[in-house]
Amino acid sequence: MPVLYLTRRATFSASHRLHSPELSEEENRRIFGRCNHPNGHGHNYVLEVTVRGEIDPCTGMVMNLSDLKRIIQERILDVVDHKHLNLDLPVFQKLVPTTENLAVVCWHLLEPALPRQNLLYEIKLHETENNVAIYRGE
Amino acid sequence: MPVLYLTRRATFSASHRLHSPELSEEENRRIFGRCNHPNGHGHNYVLEVTVRGEIDPCTGMVMNLSDLKRIIQERILDVVDHKHLNLDLPVFQKLVPTTENLAVVCWHLLEPALPRQNLLYEIKLHETENNVAIYRGE
Amino acid sequence: MPVLYLTRRATFSASHRLHSPELSEEENRRIFGRCNHPNGHGHNYVLEVTVRGEIDPCTGMVMNLSDLKRIIQERILDVVDHKHLNLDLPVFQKLVPTTENLAVVCWHLLEPALPRQNLLYEIKLHETENNVAIYRGE
Amino acid sequence: MPVLYLTRRATFSASHRLHSPELSEEENRRIFGRCNHPNGHGHNYVLEVTVRGEIDPCTGMVMNLSDLKRIIQERILDVVDHKHLNLDLPVFQKLVPTTENLAVVCWHLLEPALPRQNLLYEIKLHETENNVAIYRGE
Amino acid sequence: MPVLYLTRRATFSASHRLHSPELSEEENRRIFGRCNHPNGHGHNYVLEVTVRGEIDPCTGMVMNLSDLKRIIQERILDVVDHKHLNLDLPVFQKLVPTTENLAVVCWHLLEPALPRQNLLYEIKLHETENNVAIYRGE
Amino acid sequence: MPVLYLTRRATFSASHRLHSPELSEEENRRIFGRCNHPNGHGHNYVLEVTVRGEIDPCTGMVMNLSDLKRIIQERILDVVDHKHLNLDLPVFQKLVPTTENLAVVCWHLLEPALPRQNLLYEIKLHETENNVAIYRGE
Repeated sequence: MPVLYLTRRATFSASHRLHSPELSEEENRRIFGRCNHPNGHGHNYVLEVTVRGEIDPCTGMVMNLSDLKRIIQERILDVVDHKHLNLDLPVFQKLVPTTENLAVVCWHLLEPALPRQNLLYEIKLHETENNVAIYRGE
Repeated sequence: MPVLYLTRRATFSASHRLHSPELSEEENRRIFGRCNHPNGHGHNYVLEVTVRGEIDPCTGMVMNLSDLKRIIQERILDVVDHKHLNLDLPVFQKLVPTTENLAVVCWHLLEPALPRQNLLYEIKLHETENNVAIYRGE
Repeated sequence: MPVLYLTRRATFSASHRLHSPELSEEENRRIFGRCNHPNGHGHNYVLEVTVRGEIDPCTGMVMNLSDLKRIIQERILDVVDHKHLNLDLPVFQKLVPTTENLAVVCWHLLEPALPRQNLLYEIKLHETENNVAIYRGE
Repeated sequence: MPVLYLTRRATFSASHRLHSPELSEEENRRIFGRCNHPNGHGHNYVLEVTVRGEIDPCTGMVMNLSDLKRIIQERILDVVDHKHLNLDLPVFQKLVPTTENLAVVCWHLLEPALPRQNLLYEIKLHETENNVAIYRGE
Repeated sequence: MPVLYLTRRATFSASHRLHSPELSEEENRRIFGRCNHPNGHGHNYVLEVTVRGEIDPCTGMVMNLSDLKRIIQERILDVVDHKHLNLDLPVFQKLVPTTENLAVVCWHLLEPALPRQNLLYEIKLHETENNVAIYRGE
Repeated sequence: MPVLYLTRRATFSASHRLHSPELSEEENRRIFGRCNHPNGHGHNYVLEVTVRGEIDPCTGMVMNLSDLKRIIQERILDVVDHKHLNLDLPVFQKLVPTTENLAVVCWHLLEPALPRQNLLYEIKLHETENNVAIYRGE
């Protein structure tokens, strides 16, 4: 059967502050610039989840998009949407919530809930229309 | 001379919390839902400023877009970009930072800095790709 | 209080056929071209509903967007989404389901369910990225 | 019959130089900045033409979109697409090809070819994703 | 010579119904949900065709985009645009017209018409702004 | 450490003419069509630069986006923005400024300025919303 990539797009709104506890105040300001502002700021993140697999000959699907939509909702959106990443997600108490790290976190939130192994291919996360991170499990 | 509308688009990232000090905790939760979450959340706002006026016959412009760009930067973006609207802008200590109120605030930040009266026609503010507020000074 | 316009965007997928029972087969083909194809075709419609009114001084809202979202869902999307406009909506047995007529139908589906009169300002309906109709109740 | 606005979107690619023969070299550089660069530069313009009128009760249309598409092609796109506005369009030998002036020129190219008077409502012309001019015949 | 990927985007409007003759009515409703509605529904599909090859040192092209545009029109758009996929395309009498299967069908419609072998790299097909399938001939 | 792809988007406006000095006038017109028009035309190019590397465990970044933004500005935008590619860039005196060749040129302008080797993964260049070229250094 042909192998296809299937992408589902979702959006969420969250706030964050880029700040590393391992760095001095001055280094934090120099490295993270305006993103280090103490009160934080926010984004409308755009998340694109891509799975990869053979088409099921009966349904014509790599996986059921309504299942993928539900799993993204339960595993990612319910955790991050309308939240402050640093204050509401324990994983970001030490980890800086850059787009790169958030993409990796989304991978690990989602991957165990998918119906079979090696199905998840890519997490693509747009922080703004100009900044995007992609993680493929490497 | 022909009368034209000229629009300049800009973006900024900010966080906020929808919460009214005049309402009880329960009413705040009922009315504002997830947007009342205590730690706040954020958006990539898209701002469209429209001026209206006659074309200058020499320059072919309603107003110089590089001036409009600079005034938007100084009067609006420097105030709201990478900020927490409730905590960093005094005007939102009592006013709920809805898209509607933020559009009105942007109008009053910008209007006095424009080169002549009755030039500002509209502030259009996109909070997400699905929610937009427009203020025309009415 | 300031008067604002508030827009909520939604999408739906539907199929239709442009065909007028008042016209001959040949006239239908000449006027509607490929859109007259007997088996129909479809679109991802983008709907933008705009209400207009004074800001409520307590909530900072023209109307609650979660109410507007729910009313759009119940009155419009539940009726048209994943449907064949000609076959599933009685109103289009005689009326040709052009974008113009569909915008007027959306107005009449939505308007009576809004919380007060004169709140609905505009229905904007994108049939494709190139074709858009706007109805303002005129 | 209900009155509707119908918009057709089209795109074209053209180059231009903002330069006024009435101004000194220095004034041209000061006012037009990088847009005054002697060899010119270019844009993918996005044009939105809006007509306004009553729905025809038989066809359900304000006007036939395939006619509007053809008229936009013949009257505007064939004139400006893949052209240098200053060098290829006589009207811009004296007139500075700003977005404002180009919108007015598009109005006058299109309006006489429409099937009836008072049908054209608006020319909206996007020079970039950040700069837009609108002309309504005022 | 450098190897490049060249993408051409096109759009088409079609209707379909997700329904497998191998499944019971109940299974069809459970698996395909609203997409199983008997009268069908439709989409504005966005198709992105990517070819991959060395740049021709004389023309600076991987292949001539006007040729690619014509081949996409003749081999894909003339077959699927303004059609009902299940009723108008024999291939979908047994095959469920999911985005995945439609992407594979587009590959096989297009590939034999390209000017040389191993030129086609990817078919990317957007069913909605949230659902996308990619086929790379695997 | 996880390996991520990080993309920064930028835009620029430039004009060009597709014309090869190795070809006759007639061949130039046949191959390049309207893009061979002597006075040239222009585009709003959209550039997406992607770097690939391990996340820095302290900063959470593949590389600092403010550095990447500055390097793109200095090495690419300052060279091509508001310019005529054929007349202002010596490299295009012999090379035809197709999207493919321009993507390769952007790679060679940018790559030596990045902070370490093997960081640059991809240059994606949109000439219009329908035409895109990608170069990965192959």
